[in-house]
Amino acid sequence: MWIRNAWYVAAWTHEIESGRIHARTIIDQPLVMFRTATGIVALEDRCPHRFAPLSLGRLEGDALRCMYHGLKFAPDGTCIEIPGQKLIPQSACVRRFPLQVVGSWVWVWMGEADNADAATIPPSLALDDPAWRLQAGQLDYDAHYLLIDDNLLDLSHLSFAHEKTLGMDMPQWADLRPRMAPLERGLRFERWHTGHRPRGFMKKLGEEVDVWTTYDFLFPGVFLQRTCFHPAGTADRSGRGSPQGEPLFYRIDEQAVTPISGRASRYFYAAGARANDIDPDRLERLFAVTTTAFHEDKRLIEEQQVILERIPLEQRSIFTPADQAPTRARQMVAAMLNA
Amino acid sequence: MWIRNAWYVAAWTHEIESGRIHARTIIDQPLVMFRTATGIVALEDRCPHRFAPLSLGRLEGDALRCMYHGLKFAPDGTCIEIPGQKLIPQSACVRRFPLQVVGSWVWVWMGEADNADAATIPPSLALDDPAWRLQAGQLDYDAHYLLIDDNLLDLSHLSFAHEKTLGMDMPQWADLRPRMAPLERGLRFERWHTGHRPRGFMKKLGEEVDVWTTYDFLFPGVFLQRTCFHPAGTADRSGRGSPQGEPLFYRIDEQAVTPISGRASRYFYAAGARANDIDPDRLERLFAVTTTAFHEDKRLIEEQQVILERIPLEQRSIFTPADQAPTRARQMVAAMLNA
Amino acid sequence: MWIRNAWYVAAWTHEIESGRIHARTIIDQPLVMFRTATGIVALEDRCPHRFAPLSLGRLEGDALRCMYHGLKFAPDGTCIEIPGQKLIPQSACVRRFPLQVVGSWVWVWMGEADNADAATIPPSLALDDPAWRLQAGQLDYDAHYLLIDDNLLDLSHLSFAHEKTLGMDMPQWADLRPRMAPLERGLRFERWHTGHRPRGFMKKLGEEVDVWTTYDFLFPGVFLQRTCFHPAGTADRSGRGSPQGEPLFYRIDEQAVTPISGRASRYFYAAGARANDIDPDRLERLFAVTTTAFHEDKRLIEEQQVILERIPLEQRSIFTPADQAPTRARQMVAAMLNA
Repeated sequence: MWIRNAWYVAAWTHEIESGRIHARTIIDQPLVMFRTATGIVALEDRCPHRFAPLSLGRLEGDALRCMYHGLKFAPDGTCIEIPGQKLIPQSACVRRFPLQVVGSWVWVWMGEADNADAATIPPSLALDDPAWRLQAGQLDYDAHYLLIDDNLLDLSHLSFAHEKTLGMDMPQWADLRPRMAPLERGLRFERWHTGHRPRGFMKKLGEEVDVWTTYDFLFPGVFLQRTCFHPAGTADRSGRGSPQGEPLFYRIDEQAVTPISGRASRYFYAAGARANDIDPDRLERLFAVTTTAFHEDKRLIEEQQVILERIPLEQRSIFTPADQAPTRARQMVAAMLNA
Repeated sequence: MWIRNAWYVAAWTHEIESGRIHARTIIDQPLVMFRTATGIVALEDRCPHRFAPLSLGRLEGDALRCMYHGLKFAPDGTCIEIPGQKLIPQSACVRRFPLQVVGSWVWVWMGEADNADAATIPPSLALDDPAWRLQAGQLDYDAHYLLIDDNLLDLSHLSFAHEKTLGMDMPQWADLRPRMAPLERGLRFERWHTGHRPRGFMKKLGEEVDVWTTYDFLFPGVFLQRTCFHPAGTADRSGRGSPQGEPLFYRIDEQAVTPISGRASRYFYAAGARANDIDPDRLERLFAVTTTAFHEDKRLIEEQQVILERIPLEQRSIFTPADQAPTRARQMVAAMLNA
Repeated sequence: MWIRNAWYVAAWTHEIESGRIHARTIIDQPLVMFRTATGIVALEDRCPHRFAPLSLGRLEGDALRCMYHGLKFAPDGTCIEIPGQKLIPQSACVRRFPLQVVGSWVWVWMGEADNADAATIPPSLALDDPAWRLQAGQLDYDAHYLLIDDNLLDLSHLSFAHEKTLGMDMPQWADLRPRMAPLERGLRFERWHTGHRPRGFMKKLGEEVDVWTTYDFLFPGVFLQRTCFHPAGTADRSGRGSPQGEPLFYRIDEQAVTPISGRASRYFYAAGARANDIDPDRLERLFAVTTTAFHEDKRLIEEQQVILERIPLEQRSIFTPADQAPTRARQMVAAMLNA
């Protein structure tokens, strides 16, 4: 049911405060997270003794003590103290999950520790990267994560679900299919939209611009998008491939969907642009529109979840060209689950 | 589990406002309802593409557009537009449910469209019928609809559950069994109660009156009752059959129970009297007492539901003569479910 | 799943007020309780006719009338009236549960009435016993009762779960195992703790005291504890057995866990000391600390319940000496369930 051999975004780095204990659940597995002198740690959130939650425990230096009967664990999950007992059985340990920080995301590997390869973590920006101006948020969904993936894999919904938000500021997707190419753990999308007429503070870019949009979708639910506004004519000048020349405006959107359970997911997102392209006030407004749009998705997708709980997805009766990506993605998920 | 080949009350006509989209669920089937130039329409509330709810869509004239990826549907359920695509597959349609307005109720046929016969819809009054003065309400139950049917099929509970409301204003039912006759899709009940002493504003009818009560109970849960107060002696003069002569006071109660799911039901009700028999103030009071009484039922029946979820109804250990109607009704329901 | 042949605490006697009807659920069985001229009665809370709850009924002297269709029941559960019917079938009765008052607890026998033996009810104090000053409370848990039993059977948790409440006022348990002896329906625990340094108002007892703690744990979840503070040296003088001589301070804790359902339990508790040992103000403070400590347990145990609903207890991987009592207790429960 879950893809285990995968890295999942567990939190923004700034969420995991020093000296505090954090409970998170990923693919139905409760985790306890905290900072030690050498970094962030993620352990199974249950004492092996009586299954009390370690997240109600106490940090003692880099160790974590269960505050039910007092068992104490090192950051690698081995038990280092059992009150009233000298011998500590080998089995008295909690599972440690491999953890990596990349950019501003804390990634946890939910499968066999031996298979964890940090090199497969997708690159994402740090929120404090001086070249960019970014704002970060998160949203909890009462829905299965694949429904959110579907949403990210078919942006034709922008014209309808977001007709008054992202659909106004971003080029029409419903009429023009993007190019799609397979990646090792996902799909890449690319598209030129010519003749776009910028609105609001973007008007200064010119009456018409060519827009290059590309995003990588990576399993289980990472979405890394770049949107570049170029002078009219760039699309043709670049032979409809990767744009040549510097963009006038360079927007970035980075998102990650993390399954909590079969009907709950957490959605992490950051949006912004090159530091030179946007000032803090305009970033604020751009981010507010983005957040409003994500609430539009949330409302639709949570209702979709309710309907799907009555009727299984397999009964879906029609298929549009826009479904190519979500359908390919489901096949890839099925293949990973079989592996 | 559900009787499908049946008409169900989906709403009061005044609930379905022009230009608005209404979501309703009947026997576990989500419906979307709206008004077109030619009348009210009920469609399946899920887009055949990705199962988003059409009730979060947009009315465009008489058509309804799904606001996820933009598919557009005619009022008969056929798809008339798929953004970014010219060919529309035959399968891209949503189910339309036959719909009829009779009196002030909107009826929806939940079975095969070909079997829908408007002639089998029970007659009920329009709330604006000038001959009557009626008031309408509705109530949501956390209970299976058959428990509410049971309640309507055995009015002996009036003397207890409603001892301070309907039980005071309506004649005793616990002591005198009604005559019962089968109808094509239900049961008819008739009864004379002689020597009734009217209370309150009814006192003007005389110190003692004969009361004729008759109601039709029709599956799945329609209750159409007439209560006629006649001069003392009318019962005998009419040979204990249908009353001869005009009643002094003619009360009417019309109710419909609509299953939403296995543990939720909606109860529509109207109460009133001939326009000449009652003024608006007194109708207000009569209706307030009726509403209070229905909340008395609701409290009992919702607790009954909780108990029945622990212990199945089949274990019921005793049977009273008053149970004849509910028991016969259950047999009729079983026969309909088999058919 | 439930131990049926057992006495369960249903309420404090003062909860069951004259002239009122009380609904309680024990081991998934809804009960209706009320006072008659001769004492408290517990009946099954469902009318045998249509399964309406009798707790929504009406007391008529010592009898209880169902206020749905009016059936009336004597305090022994036999039906004494069916409206509109002369003959009352033998089957028209509700089950009566044997009931006893001992001290201030109302005990109900949930098994076969013939097996109910009042002599097996554990002795507990009445709250108004002049020799003692006691205060009583109760707490509802969203947890299986055996998790609360586990808590009472291994007091080593006092040093951790209650490090700032009971763990400060009561001697350390984590380091010293109590003696344990089997009882007919439970286990007895005894322990001397020497060199204890009293805190707060207990300081007056001396700089150091010997503390004798003993408690009986009796199924399904009764906990009767005495804590006696003696002059230093008493433990050795008594050969580490039952203390010789009068205690300086004699604390008492009486608790009972009653399962409501598989994930709900009610916890009744009283705490106090000999009347001469404590004044009302200090009792108030002692009781407040006790209540705070029980909320500490509740928070841990309810989280434990959530974790156990994901992973069965059988997977518990480690065993400490402190687990001897809870483990023995589970075996005894299993034996009782087999019997």
